[in-house]
Amino acid sequence: MPLIVTGTVGIDTVHTPHARAEKVLGGSCTYFAAAASFFTQVRVVAVVGGDFHEDYHAVFRRFPNVDVSGLELRKDSRTFAWGGRYLDDMNQRETLFTELGVLGEHPPKPPRKFADSKFVFLANSHPVVQRELLESFPQRTIAVADTMNLWIETARRDLDDLLGKIDGLVVNDEEARMLTGKRNPVAAGRKILETGPIFVVIKKGEHGCVLVHRQGVALLPAFPTERVVDPTGAGDSFAGGMMGHLAAAHSKDADIGMGAIQQALAHGTVTASFTIEAFSLDRLATLTRDEIARRYTEFQTMVRV
Amino acid sequence: MPLIVTGTVGIDTVHTPHARAEKVLGGSCTYFAAAASFFTQVRVVAVVGGDFHEDYHAVFRRFPNVDVSGLELRKDSRTFAWGGRYLDDMNQRETLFTELGVLGEHPPKPPRKFADSKFVFLANSHPVVQRELLESFPQRTIAVADTMNLWIETARRDLDDLLGKIDGLVVNDEEARMLTGKRNPVAAGRKILETGPIFVVIKKGEHGCVLVHRQGVALLPAFPTERVVDPTGAGDSFAGGMMGHLAAAHSKDADIGMGAIQQALAHGTVTASFTIEAFSLDRLATLTRDEIARRYTEFQTMVRV
Repeated sequence: MPLIVTGTVGIDTVHTPHARAEKVLGGSCTYFAAAASFFTQVRVVAVVGGDFHEDYHAVFRRFPNVDVSGLELRKDSRTFAWGGRYLDDMNQRETLFTELGVLGEHPPKPPRKFADSKFVFLANSHPVVQRELLESFPQRTIAVADTMNLWIETARRDLDDLLGKIDGLVVNDEEARMLTGKRNPVAAGRKILETGPIFVVIKKGEHGCVLVHRQGVALLPAFPTERVVDPTGAGDSFAGGMMGHLAAAHSKDADIGMGAIQQALAHGTVTASFTIEAFSLDRLATLTRDEIARRYTEFQTMVRV
Repeated sequence: MPLIVTGTVGIDTVHTPHARAEKVLGGSCTYFAAAASFFTQVRVVAVVGGDFHEDYHAVFRRFPNVDVSGLELRKDSRTFAWGGRYLDDMNQRETLFTELGVLGEHPPKPPRKFADSKFVFLANSHPVVQRELLESFPQRTIAVADTMNLWIETARRDLDDLLGKIDGLVVNDEEARMLTGKRNPVAAGRKILETGPIFVVIKKGEHGCVLVHRQGVALLPAFPTERVVDPTGAGDSFAGGMMGHLAAAHSKDADIGMGAIQQALAHGTVTASFTIEAFSLDRLATLTRDEIARRYTEFQTMVRV
């Protein structure tokens, strides 16, 4: 089923204790789409500026399943740019700079031909923008959203409104706590379900994730990557692998029962574990379905009880 | 196969944000033995003082599979006593007091009749004491030990010597890091294997554990208990459930391959999840094998991918 993602395509500058990458392709939409493209066709709705040069487009072309015809170009504006530095253990980062550029303007308008999208992922953005984008896909069967602490603090009513309209939410443990006041992920997840969604995925970084679903609770460790080069995009690749697998596995019906989501989360986990082995999209650009399948089998063995 | 545990039987005073328990039965040996007793017979080697009154013995009698004939009584000494306070989120605690009592004297001497013990667990204690106790069980086939930051810092050579004599080590993530200088649990585990053991279990509290084994790596989330009353003894119950299951499942051979340890860890996880539902041994004292089996099945469903 057609999968669409709305969110950010940006230019990242990343410093780690071991290396750095200057002005490389990044953004939630980018990582999501690249990861999802191993499982299904994926459509991108985002906006970039005049500084989004040919090299960045060339990266997208390495993912033939990614349809970038919904990538809007505004020649007189600048692409969203972000700089960050990871500290010692790669589990904490500080923002060096944020240049909103096109993100400070009106949101992109999805092409009409994308109106038949069935699986919708709303990457992080103001909840009002997310809701407007959501309404561009009237034939959707499954909508899942991401959010961030900023909107939980400053746009809570709009976010609550969005929660009533989506099927799934993906947040990290800190966001889940801010949203509910509950530290325990299962308790937090249950409280979020009361506001509308069928399932919530609570990401715990290197500690994996917790799925709280109307049908029950599931737990998934992260893949134990020993050599993390750059954690940027791990969460978005995880969401992309999950949604891509869901959309591919259920081409006719839209099964978002516990079992389907658990399998999808495992594929998201495995895909994200490749992302962090290199800067930007470098590792995903050389990744094959076979490598994903092999690591998935390895992961299954690791978590059997 | 006969399982034996050496370590501490103590008297705990525990404060949590919600309640407190004064002078209740505690200690690594106690929690370990109670947890293991759901799977197999378990022998206790420890020492208590004249203040270890009848009520504490009565708690042990609620676990008929625990053989306390190796519990040495020193009438003129005092039992080890510990007081601790858990902070807001139950993931951090501070020590209120520690009274060594009998732990400051010579270690207990295991009864001769225990010399045929096959599965040995050396709960936390000075590595020299652990090694001496280990040598009391010449017929052992499997020896597993716990340790703590204090010995890593102050008795490193003795600890290294012990590591060369045991089959398995159980530590938490902080201890693994101190021991190896490596933050990544898999990298830390691999480095520990170089010193002798066949497997290392690295505990991450509410985030579960990582098994690093000569045959590979395994990952296990913790059971997502929503209402934690008192985390004391969780790690020791986890080790007890694991060793009890190993000893019971392999009554003739001593299978400590990956698969056997993974199943044992899952049973340790499930058993520990009951311990923290109440203070002291209160929950384990009413627990049944059926309850463990049901929660194990539930856990299997939660972690399938």
